Amino acid sequence: MSNALSTAGQRLTSELHRLTPSDPKMASQKMWAVVAGVGPGTGAQVARRFAKNYAVALLARNPANYEDLVKEINSTGGRAIGISTDCADKASVSAAFDQLKKEDGFNGNLAAAIYNVGGTFIRKPFLELTDEEFEMGWKTNGLGGAHFSRAVLPLLLETEKASAPYPPTLIFTSATAALRGGALFSSFATGKFAMRALSQSLAREFGPKGVHVVHAIIDGVIDIPRTKEWKFDAPDAKISPESIADSYWHVHTQPRTSFTYELDIRPYCEKW
Amino acid sequence: MSNALSTAGQRLTSELHRLTPSDPKMASQKMWAVVAGVGPGTGAQVARRFAKNYAVALLARNPANYEDLVKEINSTGGRAIGISTDCADKASVSAAFDQLKKEDGFNGNLAAAIYNVGGTFIRKPFLELTDEEFEMGWKTNGLGGAHFSRAVLPLLLETEKASAPYPPTLIFTSATAALRGGALFSSFATGKFAMRALSQSLAREFGPKGVHVVHAIIDGVIDIPRTKEWKFDAPDAKISPESIADSYWHVHTQPRTSFTYELDIRPYCEKW
Amino acid sequence: MSNALSTAGQRLTSELHRLTPSDPKMASQKMWAVVAGVGPGTGAQVARRFAKNYAVALLARNPANYEDLVKEINSTGGRAIGISTDCADKASVSAAFDQLKKEDGFNGNLAAAIYNVGGTFIRKPFLELTDEEFEMGWKTNGLGGAHFSRAVLPLLLETEKASAPYPPTLIFTSATAALRGGALFSSFATGKFAMRALSQSLAREFGPKGVHVVHAIIDGVIDIPRTKEWKFDAPDAKISPESIADSYWHVHTQPRTSFTYELDIRPYCEKW
Amino acid sequence: MSNALSTAGQRLTSELHRLTPSDPKMASQKMWAVVAGVGPGTGAQVARRFAKNYAVALLARNPANYEDLVKEINSTGGRAIGISTDCADKASVSAAFDQLKKEDGFNGNLAAAIYNVGGTFIRKPFLELTDEEFEMGWKTNGLGGAHFSRAVLPLLLETEKASAPYPPTLIFTSATAALRGGALFSSFATGKFAMRALSQSLAREFGPKGVHVVHAIIDGVIDIPRTKEWKFDAPDAKISPESIADSYWHVHTQPRTSFTYELDIRPYCEKW
Repeated sequence: MSNALSTAGQRLTSELHRLTPSDPKMASQKMWAVVAGVGPGTGAQVARRFAKNYAVALLARNPANYEDLVKEINSTGGRAIGISTDCADKASVSAAFDQLKKEDGFNGNLAAAIYNVGGTFIRKPFLELTDEEFEMGWKTNGLGGAHFSRAVLPLLLETEKASAPYPPTLIFTSATAALRGGALFSSFATGKFAMRALSQSLAREFGPKGVHVVHAIIDGVIDIPRTKEWKFDAPDAKISPESIADSYWHVHTQPRTSFTYELDIRPYCEKW
Repeated sequence: MSNALSTAGQRLTSELHRLTPSDPKMASQKMWAVVAGVGPGTGAQVARRFAKNYAVALLARNPANYEDLVKEINSTGGRAIGISTDCADKASVSAAFDQLKKEDGFNGNLAAAIYNVGGTFIRKPFLELTDEEFEMGWKTNGLGGAHFSRAVLPLLLETEKASAPYPPTLIFTSATAALRGGALFSSFATGKFAMRALSQSLAREFGPKGVHVVHAIIDGVIDIPRTKEWKFDAPDAKISPESIADSYWHVHTQPRTSFTYELDIRPYCEKW
Repeated sequence: MSNALSTAGQRLTSELHRLTPSDPKMASQKMWAVVAGVGPGTGAQVARRFAKNYAVALLARNPANYEDLVKEINSTGGRAIGISTDCADKASVSAAFDQLKKEDGFNGNLAAAIYNVGGTFIRKPFLELTDEEFEMGWKTNGLGGAHFSRAVLPLLLETEKASAPYPPTLIFTSATAALRGGALFSSFATGKFAMRALSQSLAREFGPKGVHVVHAIIDGVIDIPRTKEWKFDAPDAKISPESIADSYWHVHTQPRTSFTYELDIRPYCEKW
Repeated sequence: MSNALSTAGQRLTSELHRLTPSDPKMASQKMWAVVAGVGPGTGAQVARRFAKNYAVALLARNPANYEDLVKEINSTGGRAIGISTDCADKASVSAAFDQLKKEDGFNGNLAAAIYNVGGTFIRKPFLELTDEEFEMGWKTNGLGGAHFSRAVLPLLLETEKASAPYPPTLIFTSATAALRGGALFSSFATGKFAMRALSQSLAREFGPKGVHVVHAIIDGVIDIPRTKEWKFDAPDAKISPESIADSYWHVHTQPRTSFTYELDIRPYCEKW
């Protein structure tokens, strides 16, 4: 048998090992991933992808956003819980992690945390924005990202000291508005610029401690139910959430010798 | 007489015209500049520079920061008022502009507005920041900048419709932290990134309406009383506030055919 | 059997299909990857990784740089050829592709092309650079990258029209010097900036035609024989070439809905 | 008389001093500025502006581009010479500076050097570019900029040691293509990216030695005879060369405490 085949065989064995439905005790020893901002698109696919290897905690304000997904994952060999959380509210984030820490099998073994909270996208003349609208960008992306980071970083630092298959990882889902403040987008752009500043600052502070911080710039329309009817001249013009999830998983598996901090993802036909 | 001499003569005439001590009525017809964040450094020099051409309103939380400067400008042929203002507090900003609008000679004729509020500079591990400390960067730079912009933009738009010697101008004093989120600087960097996003968004929305929005990246230690004892290997290692003021005045005088949106200013010996 | 297991089984089948030692005729129908700049580090690992799926053509000026690797790949179930090529010399690049096109089994079916030519790294005062030294950065990174791109793009466009498992991909190995022109690095930085310009321009022109162009910023010391003795305070301070290869393979597998144009890779402990 | 008037008086005196038609001997002691790339637009206005203070040497391939301007400046109280130079050709640049150095009154006292050579702007599919077309971007912007820099930097370093009113200055006229590699612009973008790399590298190497290096991003159509018929929806849609010249003069006058490295200039109505 060739080396390549032999390697494939070894991979299968380890894959089977990972995927074998485990008894409850084993399941309770699984590592965890937390995904904040689970809706019908990126968050759900990221959750499905990370649920192949980890127990997953899904955070969303509205339980309707995670209930079906929790059932789906639990019924297909994975483990998931949902916790209603408003990431812009520090008390809500604290309560969510208090609940998670009491969860059977959660003992600080957090492998990955994904902040995928986007908030409502506001396009409006600056002088017509209400105070609440203007601050929404910051609260969702900057402040919420910081609340989430403060909750997960101590856990990720613990994981780093334990033996884990991959470096503990914190991923921020961002957008082109993190690089360019467009006219009429002052709310969203201030929030996404702040998210990028936060993630850079954390990458530089916690990278040397072994925590992998990633800023992912999603540039384009994502293929989700809400955008189903949006038509484009080119086929395949919408970003596949599965691909985003694959890229998130890929960066999660990078060893600490070789961390990617920032990557962009856009359809081949997107103008940029 | 050469053309050059003739030009110099014309310039002198117009300069004398501008500088002639005017009777109270004339003074009351002067255009205005507002400088928010007047302390011992950049703000004061910017105020002095713009006071050569305009009446100036100086905003600072602590009246001690502007009182002497108001006297100095008023006693040397200029006109200045001070208004105690906390730019992070929308009500305080509104009250300041209500007061300004009642000022004798202020009839919306705002030529320039400079947002020079920096806030306390925090260098601290992310997990040790208090909520208040983390949010200070945003409140001072992003939110405060927005409160100020909402107050001045309607006035600057009015000025644009009137005949003014230079396009109405809104300048933000920023920092290298607007481009790079350093370790331990998550508060300051999220604020300055947000300020850059805000200024870009405003430049793209209000530029086409004739308002000149500028983001100035001050990169280095400024030569002010507080930094007097800071020593460097190289001479002239500190940025002169007068030079910043000269550059602010220069961009203010650019015609609308030729707007600079972003410029950096740093000592020749600064590493960057 | 769970869905996950079923999926794993399907994957194994397709992996076995890909890896089964094929008869010469089948082998001749394999798709190809070209790697320019094969030495002891990134290039060799990229070649090994892509050789798991494709026949590989390895380009280097000095045959000593690829001979052992060609043998290794051919003796472990893969297929490789080496072609002595100076990428900065257009005639040499043309000759290399003429030779490749005559290769048994090569019929334009190019799946991926990686430009990994770095050239000698020069750190020298600007006024002391010889003409040749200054231009080396451009010739190696900008001009050589363009010669290579002109050779591979017509082939990649052909592949795009055929059915291929992944979008045809052109990857440039770049460096932090593509983003920052440091003192004493004018030669290297002009070359890497130009490489980034070239790759952006190609990404925007050929992306809409289905060709995936990637600019990878490798920021740090790579773990190769030449750097073996370089010591750092932190362990794992050198980038693993295997990880770079994994990330290159990952971006190659991205569907056209979800292209990454730019990603950085650096050790967790690198200052940036 | 107010302080302000007194200051105005002092300024007039010094301005008159500078502008007084001087006897030949005095003229021969004037400092010099060199402007490479003198045509009907930016270069000519920059030359006129710097000729108010300095003797100017105007470089262009075609003498027709500078002959009238040389006459104009010499007949209005200034001093100008023209030298036919191809900046992409090192020997031509060397010959030009050999000639300049023999000029009466030129004794190394170079105050400012402006590299304004743009070259023909090519918009063409990458695979249709001839070799010459592709390399033109580099030769004009990167290589030519380096030839020019090697000629002027030793002179500027000498000036720095002498007493000069302003720090010696080297300015590169660049474009948005220095920041963004657009589709079909691979030639121009590789050249402008390289120019930016070169200018950054020089700024970081020669800044600490007191030489001010500036990269000016001109973003938009310039108002010159060739663009006279170009119509836009908005009035004042073209950049005024006079304003560019004013900004170049402004940065030249910045003290070394307060150097601007990069600034952009664009019409208020430009999309960016």
